[in-house]
Amino acid sequence: MKQYLKIDEWSIIEESFDPQTQEISESVFSIGNGYMGGRANFEEQYSGRSLQGSYMAGVYYPDKTRVGWWKNGYPEYFAKVLNSTNWIGINIDIDGTPLDLAKCTVSEFRRVLNMKEGTLSRSFTAALEDGKEVKVESIRMVSMVRQEIGAIRYSILPLNFNGEITVTPYLDGDIKNKDSNYDEKFWNEVEKKGEPDSGYLTLKTKKLDFHVTSAMAFDILVNGEQLNAEAEVIEQEKYVASTVHLSVKPGDQIVIYKYAANVTSRNHGLGQLVDAASAALNSAREAGFVALLSEQAAAWRDKWKESDIYIEGDVSAQQAIRFNIFQLNQTYNGEDDRLNIGPKGFTGEKYGGSTYWDTEAYCVPFYLSTADSTIARNLLIYRYKHLEKAKENARKLGFRKGALYPMVTMNGEECHNEWEITFEEIHRNGAIAHAIYNYVNYTGDQAYLGQYGLEVLVEISRFWEERVHYVPHKEKYVMLGVTGPNEYENNVNNNWYTNRMASWTMEYTLEALSYLQEQEPARYAELVDKLELLEEETAKWSEIIAKMYYPLDDERGIFLQQDGFLDKEIILVKDMLPEHLPLNQKWSWDRILRSCFIKQADVLQGLYFLGDRYDLETKRRNFDFYEPITVHESSLSPCIHAILACELGYMEKAYEMYLRTSRLDLDNYNNDTEDGCHSTSMAGTWMSVVHGFGGLRVEDGRLRLAPSNPGHWTSYAFKIMFRGSRLKVSVTDQQVTVTNETEIPAALTLYDQEYEIEGLGTITADGVSITA
Amino acid sequence: MKQYLKIDEWSIIEESFDPQTQEISESVFSIGNGYMGGRANFEEQYSGRSLQGSYMAGVYYPDKTRVGWWKNGYPEYFAKVLNSTNWIGINIDIDGTPLDLAKCTVSEFRRVLNMKEGTLSRSFTAALEDGKEVKVESIRMVSMVRQEIGAIRYSILPLNFNGEITVTPYLDGDIKNKDSNYDEKFWNEVEKKGEPDSGYLTLKTKKLDFHVTSAMAFDILVNGEQLNAEAEVIEQEKYVASTVHLSVKPGDQIVIYKYAANVTSRNHGLGQLVDAASAALNSAREAGFVALLSEQAAAWRDKWKESDIYIEGDVSAQQAIRFNIFQLNQTYNGEDDRLNIGPKGFTGEKYGGSTYWDTEAYCVPFYLSTADSTIARNLLIYRYKHLEKAKENARKLGFRKGALYPMVTMNGEECHNEWEITFEEIHRNGAIAHAIYNYVNYTGDQAYLGQYGLEVLVEISRFWEERVHYVPHKEKYVMLGVTGPNEYENNVNNNWYTNRMASWTMEYTLEALSYLQEQEPARYAELVDKLELLEEETAKWSEIIAKMYYPLDDERGIFLQQDGFLDKEIILVKDMLPEHLPLNQKWSWDRILRSCFIKQADVLQGLYFLGDRYDLETKRRNFDFYEPITVHESSLSPCIHAILACELGYMEKAYEMYLRTSRLDLDNYNNDTEDGCHSTSMAGTWMSVVHGFGGLRVEDGRLRLAPSNPGHWTSYAFKIMFRGSRLKVSVTDQQVTVTNETEIPAALTLYDQEYEIEGLGTITADGVSITA
Repeated sequence: MKQYLKIDEWSIIEESFDPQTQEISESVFSIGNGYMGGRANFEEQYSGRSLQGSYMAGVYYPDKTRVGWWKNGYPEYFAKVLNSTNWIGINIDIDGTPLDLAKCTVSEFRRVLNMKEGTLSRSFTAALEDGKEVKVESIRMVSMVRQEIGAIRYSILPLNFNGEITVTPYLDGDIKNKDSNYDEKFWNEVEKKGEPDSGYLTLKTKKLDFHVTSAMAFDILVNGEQLNAEAEVIEQEKYVASTVHLSVKPGDQIVIYKYAANVTSRNHGLGQLVDAASAALNSAREAGFVALLSEQAAAWRDKWKESDIYIEGDVSAQQAIRFNIFQLNQTYNGEDDRLNIGPKGFTGEKYGGSTYWDTEAYCVPFYLSTADSTIARNLLIYRYKHLEKAKENARKLGFRKGALYPMVTMNGEECHNEWEITFEEIHRNGAIAHAIYNYVNYTGDQAYLGQYGLEVLVEISRFWEERVHYVPHKEKYVMLGVTGPNEYENNVNNNWYTNRMASWTMEYTLEALSYLQEQEPARYAELVDKLELLEEETAKWSEIIAKMYYPLDDERGIFLQQDGFLDKEIILVKDMLPEHLPLNQKWSWDRILRSCFIKQADVLQGLYFLGDRYDLETKRRNFDFYEPITVHESSLSPCIHAILACELGYMEKAYEMYLRTSRLDLDNYNNDTEDGCHSTSMAGTWMSVVHGFGGLRVEDGRLRLAPSNPGHWTSYAFKIMFRGSRLKVSVTDQQVTVTNETEIPAALTLYDQEYEIEGLGTITADGVSITA
Repeated sequence: MKQYLKIDEWSIIEESFDPQTQEISESVFSIGNGYMGGRANFEEQYSGRSLQGSYMAGVYYPDKTRVGWWKNGYPEYFAKVLNSTNWIGINIDIDGTPLDLAKCTVSEFRRVLNMKEGTLSRSFTAALEDGKEVKVESIRMVSMVRQEIGAIRYSILPLNFNGEITVTPYLDGDIKNKDSNYDEKFWNEVEKKGEPDSGYLTLKTKKLDFHVTSAMAFDILVNGEQLNAEAEVIEQEKYVASTVHLSVKPGDQIVIYKYAANVTSRNHGLGQLVDAASAALNSAREAGFVALLSEQAAAWRDKWKESDIYIEGDVSAQQAIRFNIFQLNQTYNGEDDRLNIGPKGFTGEKYGGSTYWDTEAYCVPFYLSTADSTIARNLLIYRYKHLEKAKENARKLGFRKGALYPMVTMNGEECHNEWEITFEEIHRNGAIAHAIYNYVNYTGDQAYLGQYGLEVLVEISRFWEERVHYVPHKEKYVMLGVTGPNEYENNVNNNWYTNRMASWTMEYTLEALSYLQEQEPARYAELVDKLELLEEETAKWSEIIAKMYYPLDDERGIFLQQDGFLDKEIILVKDMLPEHLPLNQKWSWDRILRSCFIKQADVLQGLYFLGDRYDLETKRRNFDFYEPITVHESSLSPCIHAILACELGYMEKAYEMYLRTSRLDLDNYNNDTEDGCHSTSMAGTWMSVVHGFGGLRVEDGRLRLAPSNPGHWTSYAFKIMFRGSRLKVSVTDQQVTVTNETEIPAALTLYDQEYEIEGLGTITADGVSITA
């Protein structure tokens, strides 16, 4: 772990060039707009270590499964969001020598991710081996307003020579996914055209026939004058470029404006791709780079208005939380209900850009509170649309009824191929059910249940019904052979979390059915008919709820993670020699499995999800038992612990957990940021602050806040959107102020007192509760 | 399952040619001699579906591991016995058209594996598309006397044409393993030379530098006259051949004698390979084919003298048991203690030809009773030589001391890469310890303990010591996270079999230490010193033995396969719909894991291994509980059930189990014989007869027999070698006769009566016990 980035409230700043950290910076400085995005690769050629990455949301490839030993039920492929055409490229040659930072002496290097306005900029002076020096400045954006548009301003200043600079803007589609299972390229060329100041390139995927057209246009200004030089058009396999030769002298300023449009067959007809790209491109070029920048800044201003968190007295924490929020807003914008949130967003290839339960467990709460409710709703609709595939998946594994959502998916089909995860980590079904509850509870949109929610709930309940069985000598229903959220246990019996979420799903389904029967009897009848729902089924769910088996330890008063957990040797993480950590790098898999150590919240995840059903002492006993044996080797673990620690008044522990998650990528804490950022866990960081320190809950349709100050900050403030109003919650050591930034009145409970805040009104609470 | 082979006492016979069964026949008709062997591929070209296979024992390739998701501790490679130079090839062309049974009309086809004399022969008449007909006869052998030599007599008779026949004997090393992980070829050419009537080819493996030289020589006779025709020498990459052109008329008889020598750098210096091959080849050619056949018949006569089983009244059973014995004797001869027994012998590539616990659990008993005791001893020495690697393997997985033998190995290093097997199926350590006990108990060779056995026992006991841990609230030692012999359960806690074998290993180790201390105090002191054996360690083993936890069900009076086994839904195999079987083809892996169904004997395996420690009623209760839920989807399962069933007097069940194992490959029962034969499970078939029906046990150094007649045979007889004597045991419905075929007197207990049989003597027992 090497902290090389400068601390700043609104920007990520790198102040010198180091090939060793280039791939990490490529991840951290990534930019995107929910529709497309890419890593912070250089515009000009770079021969050093680099992970090229440019991604179009939803354009994926079914890469044939690679496995050592096949097990029945494994999927045929793993879907991967593809590395697509490199549209940022502008090669620069100086008297025939490529400008390549791997081969220059680089000085005054500075790279800035401006999170306030959504731009990536870079400046440096480079001396070539022959002594020629140039100063370069670039600024790049992926437009939040025009989703298909990216733009670059790239300027070069020769410092000490007369000579020729050639500039070659290009589109390069001859690229490969680094994680290709069989070292294949996934794209074929369809068509291309090069013109002196523009060009386009259409590729299609070798399977599934996704088409992507990338178009570029560029203007070159020399000392402020538009250049009308001859350009040499270059066309190669999956490649289009134009080369312009310029005679330069010291002090000449060459500025290249490159505009690019990337359109896909997901949004346009096959015959319209080139036209659509041209139209978007021309409109952007006409508007001009300055106007695009200004639109971009305005769009980000709106985003920050809804989602910013302000921290006073700790610039490092301030930067970190904004980085997390910035990345989340770059990754998903909720405009397309066919999309979801890959664990690495647009910052890398790992995990295939596919959907995991991270979405429901971590991202839905973030979008619920920081954006219009349609965004979280679209994440739910995504799963609704996959319901038929989830039913097929259950059939494939031998279930007569019900739905099992996949562990990893792109289009609703399972992609993952480890039996202990693919077949057994079925608690994901519970998180998907819980997200429906969470959405309805937060927004009050009960209509969602009749429209979409109940169908999903019923099919998941049916799955749980068939997945448990009755054990006469226990007089209980048990669930054998599962993997819980703690993946450091595999194939266990009666994972408390899974059993509990299964039974909770059935409870909530019954509750939702009753609600619908009473409130929307016609829709209820329609659904019962459509789902062929039988009274025996709901009766069976009631019976299972009543007789579900939960492993417990009476002596300690805790829920047991699974049957037999206390037969393990209990060793605390603090008593481990440091050379054994992290376990996932130092220990063999069987040793990890046999140990008591927990990768991520499991029982505690349940106590968080179902927090209103357990009293504080129950939470405390379980937290006190499990937290000391948890190694947090999943980036999704510390946030849940931070939230529970806040609730229990363990503020130091909460702050420790918060630190562990908030600067995960900025400080490359897990030593893997070069693969991409931990995008979904960033939502967990946000949760640490708002659900943790802020104490946000929604109970019986009522917003509840119970802020505490972790003690390391002068003050902090966060925004939350709730049922039409937008509230700004500011917390100092002494005082909590809630300001309604909208004209819509809001009701809330602050600590234990109820308030109504009129439109644009403010309430203030002073109190001892703030500092634990 | 298609029964297309003819029933015969001494031969396997196929009477028509069917491309659909060609690959099955290639497996079944395989020949080998423990040093090399291969599938029954045709000598002449064949363009139909075929698995080419020619193998040299111990010549393997470390093929880079292929895995979907890496786990810490996985091995870098999977060792594979290589498909090596095809030395049997003789291409035949008739007026320019290849003789290729896939493209001819074939009649009078007959293929015979003569098990009595160790030859593979074939005859057929083939009509080419243009109507030309030839009659072909071939006979092939891999010499049991000259281990590096194979020989073929191949004759062609043109029936209805004048024309040209060209004959091309060749050596082809340009071959590939079908199961190559990355579709690579594993051989490079070193040198080659072609002569008109001979040639050689030296290849080496791309890794590990195994060199193999194959040399051939041939004689061609036309109508009995040695031919001195011009031959055209052909040399290509990894290929040497000679082509001879012959003008023929109807009735001419062309006979080709092809001799081949295959020598390896395992047995010769690199510089001596060609000379060694030439010497072996010339000597064989000089002796001539008839002499080689006669040597071969004599060698097999000796093998049968020691290992035959005779069954009267059931030719099918007779054929089957001889097929099993024949294959075992072809696969391993005990002459080289660096070799072991791959699950498919020389009959296919699957499982890499590596060593599994099959050797200790099934093969050692076979060789103990049917061959000189040095053979079984060499199988033990093989593991002794791997002790250092087994210690390294334990270190790699995080153990401070002790040895964990690999699940699958070629040179002592682990090859397998499924965590639930590689890391958890550690009961193999118990089987390796038990084989030492079994050998010493059977042979009385107590000296083995001091020489080799104890070192292995101590290191295995140390492993068990570290692998268990004490649970205070149970006041017991437990063993978490294992996979037992029943691989339809993974990662379970307290597998009864594993716990029991662990504790048994420690008991036996302590017993052996006491024995040595008393009988060989000097060696004892030496070993204690070498092993740095501490008193704390042996004291700890005693404590573990006393306090080992065994899961039990008091109500049923049975040992539980593992913790929580009775929480499963117990369904009997007989109550399953046939479309669900076999489970490994019909069910997803998780469904198999959750079910109660047992792949192969687990608790029952323990009751067999430690049979003298459990009374009949205990065995009966466990058998009655477990057998009805066992699906026997491992070929190693039915034999153990057959033996226990005999002991319990369940003769019909025993016979059913025997049938299931004895004709497994001849009737392609598991529908996978095309991959190769189930060589190691053949030892289990032998055990079904001798330990099962024959009731063979050795207790306190004394041979015990308690034969029963399964009721489907008029009589049966088997041979056993015991401490120098060789006994023939003949069993009818009425009578058991034991004949001592040697001059060394033998003592035995027959049923409950003690006998001494003098040299060449016979005893007879009449009795009701025979028919249950």
